[in-house]
Amino acid sequence: MLNFKQYEGLPKNASEAIEQCVLANRILANEGVLDGFGHVSVRNPENSKTFFQARSIAPEFVNKEDILEIDLEGNIVTNTNFRAYGERIIHASIYKYRTDVQAVFHGHPTEIIALSCLNIPIRSVAQYCGMFYEPLPFYDDYEPGCGMLIVTQKEGDRVARTLGNALGLVMRGHGCTVVGANVQQMVMNAIFLRDNAKIQYLALALGEPKYLSEQEGRETTKAQYSENSLGRCWNYWVARAKKAMPDLNF
Amino acid sequence: MLNFKQYEGLPKNASEAIEQCVLANRILANEGVLDGFGHVSVRNPENSKTFFQARSIAPEFVNKEDILEIDLEGNIVTNTNFRAYGERIIHASIYKYRTDVQAVFHGHPTEIIALSCLNIPIRSVAQYCGMFYEPLPFYDDYEPGCGMLIVTQKEGDRVARTLGNALGLVMRGHGCTVVGANVQQMVMNAIFLRDNAKIQYLALALGEPKYLSEQEGRETTKAQYSENSLGRCWNYWVARAKKAMPDLNF
Amino acid sequence: MLNFKQYEGLPKNASEAIEQCVLANRILANEGVLDGFGHVSVRNPENSKTFFQARSIAPEFVNKEDILEIDLEGNIVTNTNFRAYGERIIHASIYKYRTDVQAVFHGHPTEIIALSCLNIPIRSVAQYCGMFYEPLPFYDDYEPGCGMLIVTQKEGDRVARTLGNALGLVMRGHGCTVVGANVQQMVMNAIFLRDNAKIQYLALALGEPKYLSEQEGRETTKAQYSENSLGRCWNYWVARAKKAMPDLNF
Amino acid sequence: MLNFKQYEGLPKNASEAIEQCVLANRILANEGVLDGFGHVSVRNPENSKTFFQARSIAPEFVNKEDILEIDLEGNIVTNTNFRAYGERIIHASIYKYRTDVQAVFHGHPTEIIALSCLNIPIRSVAQYCGMFYEPLPFYDDYEPGCGMLIVTQKEGDRVARTLGNALGLVMRGHGCTVVGANVQQMVMNAIFLRDNAKIQYLALALGEPKYLSEQEGRETTKAQYSENSLGRCWNYWVARAKKAMPDLNF
Repeated sequence: MLNFKQYEGLPKNASEAIEQCVLANRILANEGVLDGFGHVSVRNPENSKTFFQARSIAPEFVNKEDILEIDLEGNIVTNTNFRAYGERIIHASIYKYRTDVQAVFHGHPTEIIALSCLNIPIRSVAQYCGMFYEPLPFYDDYEPGCGMLIVTQKEGDRVARTLGNALGLVMRGHGCTVVGANVQQMVMNAIFLRDNAKIQYLALALGEPKYLSEQEGRETTKAQYSENSLGRCWNYWVARAKKAMPDLNF
Repeated sequence: MLNFKQYEGLPKNASEAIEQCVLANRILANEGVLDGFGHVSVRNPENSKTFFQARSIAPEFVNKEDILEIDLEGNIVTNTNFRAYGERIIHASIYKYRTDVQAVFHGHPTEIIALSCLNIPIRSVAQYCGMFYEPLPFYDDYEPGCGMLIVTQKEGDRVARTLGNALGLVMRGHGCTVVGANVQQMVMNAIFLRDNAKIQYLALALGEPKYLSEQEGRETTKAQYSENSLGRCWNYWVARAKKAMPDLNF
Repeated sequence: MLNFKQYEGLPKNASEAIEQCVLANRILANEGVLDGFGHVSVRNPENSKTFFQARSIAPEFVNKEDILEIDLEGNIVTNTNFRAYGERIIHASIYKYRTDVQAVFHGHPTEIIALSCLNIPIRSVAQYCGMFYEPLPFYDDYEPGCGMLIVTQKEGDRVARTLGNALGLVMRGHGCTVVGANVQQMVMNAIFLRDNAKIQYLALALGEPKYLSEQEGRETTKAQYSENSLGRCWNYWVARAKKAMPDLNF
Repeated sequence: MLNFKQYEGLPKNASEAIEQCVLANRILANEGVLDGFGHVSVRNPENSKTFFQARSIAPEFVNKEDILEIDLEGNIVTNTNFRAYGERIIHASIYKYRTDVQAVFHGHPTEIIALSCLNIPIRSVAQYCGMFYEPLPFYDDYEPGCGMLIVTQKEGDRVARTLGNALGLVMRGHGCTVVGANVQQMVMNAIFLRDNAKIQYLALALGEPKYLSEQEGRETTKAQYSENSLGRCWNYWVARAKKAMPDLNF
């Protein structure tokens, strides 16, 4: 019987935030949104000036002992020899500018890159992906010398400014960054942005789809972020990840 | 050796209906037609004014103890604290208007949403999907304030009227609803509607497909709903679900 | 270490033919070429007027005890209560007209149906699928009253005549039938026809592909049917099927 | 916890080269880049005039005892009855002309063949596939009589000359050949060439993508081949292969 305790909303302390961070890594790898690259993070509920993120390894194999604490300038707070992700500055900058954001995703789904290198804005075509009813902001202002990676404070801030108050942004030829008011929303946004990009791509190959109206978008977003809907999805994704990854033992 | 007893047609009592409801959930999740959302139901053979449906959890993990009894106004008959699906009213309204229907599916396959937001009618292009030889009715008359979800009695009735005597209907930007004269037909219709949408999509990207004629459609439907064909498919889907889901222990 | 004894070419007796028939069912299900429908057969090496084929169940679950012996008019020779596939007449008719054929496949891959309902001839675009260098014959002459299924002697003969000396034929809105000089060739032809249809489809969506020339086709066919190439593939497919299907215990 | 010792760069001796060759076979099969055909090789660190490659079996099942030593004319140095791959001459010729190359891949991914038979040059559209910023050379000069296979010294040399100093080349209707300065780079190049072809294909179906500039390509290549990035990917791919293939016991 599916255990409803798995869904708990915002973490009450650092330990719960670390567990949610591990689960987000595992879920997004298991659902095909993350592969060898990409990363997620969760703001520290005990100190809003730091966040939790895995060391530089593939999300599919992240465990609690791989999680580092990082501050909003991207400095590693944890006393460790582990290497952090180069692009942790994306997360740091967003947490600095967006006090409403408690979790961040950055990844490279195939359909999102395809639409990004055509500069086609991603926008809701499906009810269950209704949170993207406003076209996502687009980033193509890469710092020369960084290999299209966001690794400097300056570019991290530029990405955060491009994001503005949106749910995410698309980066040309690179992928996307998505935020959430909690880990569950961030995971939902990451999976459903990929799903919407796929459906939108299919529709665009045959014609011009009818996008969700602003009113439809607002209403579906509220429905999707309700405890009923978000909790059902989260429990589902956790149960699937645990079934596929028996080494995840909490 | 494949056990042919698994196919039994209409349930003889409530207990069998609940088992078939669980199997339909598992099969449709295992075949990729249902994911975190979507739901199925089976009319109660002991009381045609109620039906069985899982509580609000993902179909992949439904077990017998998750099944609720619901009446045709959408009231939960079972004495329980479990939450029901918000869109159970789709099922309730259809059972009210369509006395021939014993099972209902509602879900959101990718290709069906893509075609729906272009308002391209789904119609049989493949022999094995011949039951959709008449283009499915199309619904785009969402109640303001409900987030494109069918949750009011009034809209449930509108959906049922749009369905009319058809096998299913397509809902713009949302998905589809499919019915059956028994659970096995409903499961076949749900899987093959998805398959037909995929093949039709592929064909439309290159040209104008030759659809099945009305005569071809009528004949293939009869063949597909025969005990030989439907029983073979049902046994196959059950065997695959049981292999992939060892926790399903009946 | 991969066991090279698995590849043995033509069966020496009925018992080996039955084993190869089971393996072909399992391989083609495991490689995604067969699902709930479709069937394969192997000519009886002890009696060229009969062939072996599973009873009417899904190929993924076929075992030795499910194999029937059938004659070239489609009569079931085995003393059994099992039901045979309705379309066994396709196999019977081909064995009657084509003495060079020792194994037959009939199935419904997605991409083949999509191309078939556009009447786009399938033809080799890939070296490893070079055996289809002559466009496959096309069948769209269904007998009224049979639901686009080939179930009468008369239509079986018509299908066999359309096939002529070709490796296979495409049936509009239905699927394909493929033959082989032995089971291994039939399995290779079935998998690679599906693969070629997929690659050809992808190419046609962007432009006009360069097809293999007749000379290229002849040469690649010879190379693919060599013991080295065919044996390597067969051993690979058997090993994969056995890994995925532990119930297959010979 | 993910074991970082798995990434070791260039093999120190023949024994390590053989292990890396086995891992490359398993990884590329597990990631869907190799199937029944295709092959990889690793130059012998103890003798730059020979290289290691599996006997003629499917990559998914290669073990250490299947690895042969072959010289740069394609002669089998190992004292064995095993058969070598016919196309080993591709590898031999490249090792002869390209002293910087320590590992070679040859395979047939679907999307690469599709683009190849349209003669559409493959070129970086994604940051993580930035190493292909210069369009790959194209080969369509097959030796008559060889079935589009590269099996003669003369044609092996012609392929090597077409490759020139590039990272790989595309062969019309056949597939691709990719090289690396070490096994890890070769594996990354093989997987990401397939990925880039897929994303580029998707983009081309809707419009004209913005390709990576030369500067972007140079920078991303440097980032991708860094120990941090390449090591993370290699460890990820090894861990996934070991999880999926329990028979790989080193």
